[in-house]
Amino acid sequence: MENIFKLPYEVVYYDTDVKKRMTLERLVAVCVLVSEEQSTFVGRDAAYLAPLNLGWVITQYEMDFVRMPILGEKLEFLTQATSWNKYFCYRNFWVKDANGEVIIEMSATFVLMDLTERKLKSVPENIIAPFGGYKENKIKRSPKLPALNATDFLPYRVRYFDLDSNQHVNNSHYFSWMLDALGADFLNAHEVKKVTIHFDKEVAYGQEVQSYVEILDDGSTLHEIKEGPDLFANAQVWWQDRA
Amino acid sequence: MENIFKLPYEVVYYDTDVKKRMTLERLVAVCVLVSEEQSTFVGRDAAYLAPLNLGWVITQYEMDFVRMPILGEKLEFLTQATSWNKYFCYRNFWVKDANGEVIIEMSATFVLMDLTERKLKSVPENIIAPFGGYKENKIKRSPKLPALNATDFLPYRVRYFDLDSNQHVNNSHYFSWMLDALGADFLNAHEVKKVTIHFDKEVAYGQEVQSYVEILDDGSTLHEIKEGPDLFANAQVWWQDRA
Repeated sequence: MENIFKLPYEVVYYDTDVKKRMTLERLVAVCVLVSEEQSTFVGRDAAYLAPLNLGWVITQYEMDFVRMPILGEKLEFLTQATSWNKYFCYRNFWVKDANGEVIIEMSATFVLMDLTERKLKSVPENIIAPFGGYKENKIKRSPKLPALNATDFLPYRVRYFDLDSNQHVNNSHYFSWMLDALGADFLNAHEVKKVTIHFDKEVAYGQEVQSYVEILDDGSTLHEIKEGPDLFANAQVWWQDRA
Repeated sequence: MENIFKLPYEVVYYDTDVKKRMTLERLVAVCVLVSEEQSTFVGRDAAYLAPLNLGWVITQYEMDFVRMPILGEKLEFLTQATSWNKYFCYRNFWVKDANGEVIIEMSATFVLMDLTERKLKSVPENIIAPFGGYKENKIKRSPKLPALNATDFLPYRVRYFDLDSNQHVNNSHYFSWMLDALGADFLNAHEVKKVTIHFDKEVAYGQEVQSYVEILDDGSTLHEIKEGPDLFANAQVWWQDRA
């Protein structure tokens, strides 16, 4: 395959939880790092986008896990920009273990945002073409998630250090807000198998969001990050028993 | 100087805040990583301590900053175990920028904890001697901090992903709890110059702590992490205007 960008990464203590597994938040943070490194490599990094007042925002992920990496594992992260249309750019990620086995596969949708208006912009060819991939008119439909009926939630106040240099909450924090609401007993006994997550609106400093969670009959969990009636992100997570 | 252990580290997006400065939490996380790498190098890592049911815990830091590193900087982290006595082990850290200038100096106190009893243990020579340094009877007295009189606080509920594999809250999170309580206006306008912090007790999952903060006449800030009357950590931070 062409235009695949690779980065070795060793899982260290601050990537891991009480069970010495890499956290979803840290996994996603490293994926974003790899895509940033590719942007630098092809000459289309944040410094290139800044004079255009543009920045990338991720609107959804679909993720499949054979298993979570554990403390001390030497991994390889790979990414490839696959295709784009007027507004949406599609990118895949893979995580390989030391044996070269793919243990995680992810697909992500990126959009370009005007940094002042916080509005979607169409994707200019000169920004996206250097990554490779191809233009197509087809828009990928992401799986629609079931409605969440739970009324239980935990509150999460946005903290200063949750913000990134785009002045909004980095997406990776949503994973911790969603999963933390499941509690230690559930998280100790389960490991992520599959995730679909949509990011709908940006959370800002000063907000306090509610993380709603519901466990479905099939064992999967539904998650919504809301402030009052406003939905900011929702997800469905499928689980496997911890090996 | 002998027995200095070094690790190169490049500041990436998830290390930084809205101003593209490295956060104190991430700085300390990387320092701990460097000391862990040295432990592995000298054959005294967590796997060596585990059968003895022992783990290292940091009880205090003193830190001096010329400036905070910023996004993209290529740094070198250095550490040296300097001396120890019956219960306390002393270690220094330095952060050098790409010009070789020392921009951060830190001294830290480590103790050995029995992982079941959560009690201090005396330090066996065979555990500490391989790091170099020397034994002395002198106990270093750390600067006593002024009493904090403020009644304002923000609450922080311990989250599942705040815990590390020792089942307690990683010390680095205390920095974010302490500084977040100062608010964005203060943090945007100031940068850390000097820190003294003491960790007194371990915070556990399920607790909700209060982060008290008071701004003194000299511009420094006092911080206490408490749950009701119980003190878990306290600190004084001196600031410089942001360059």
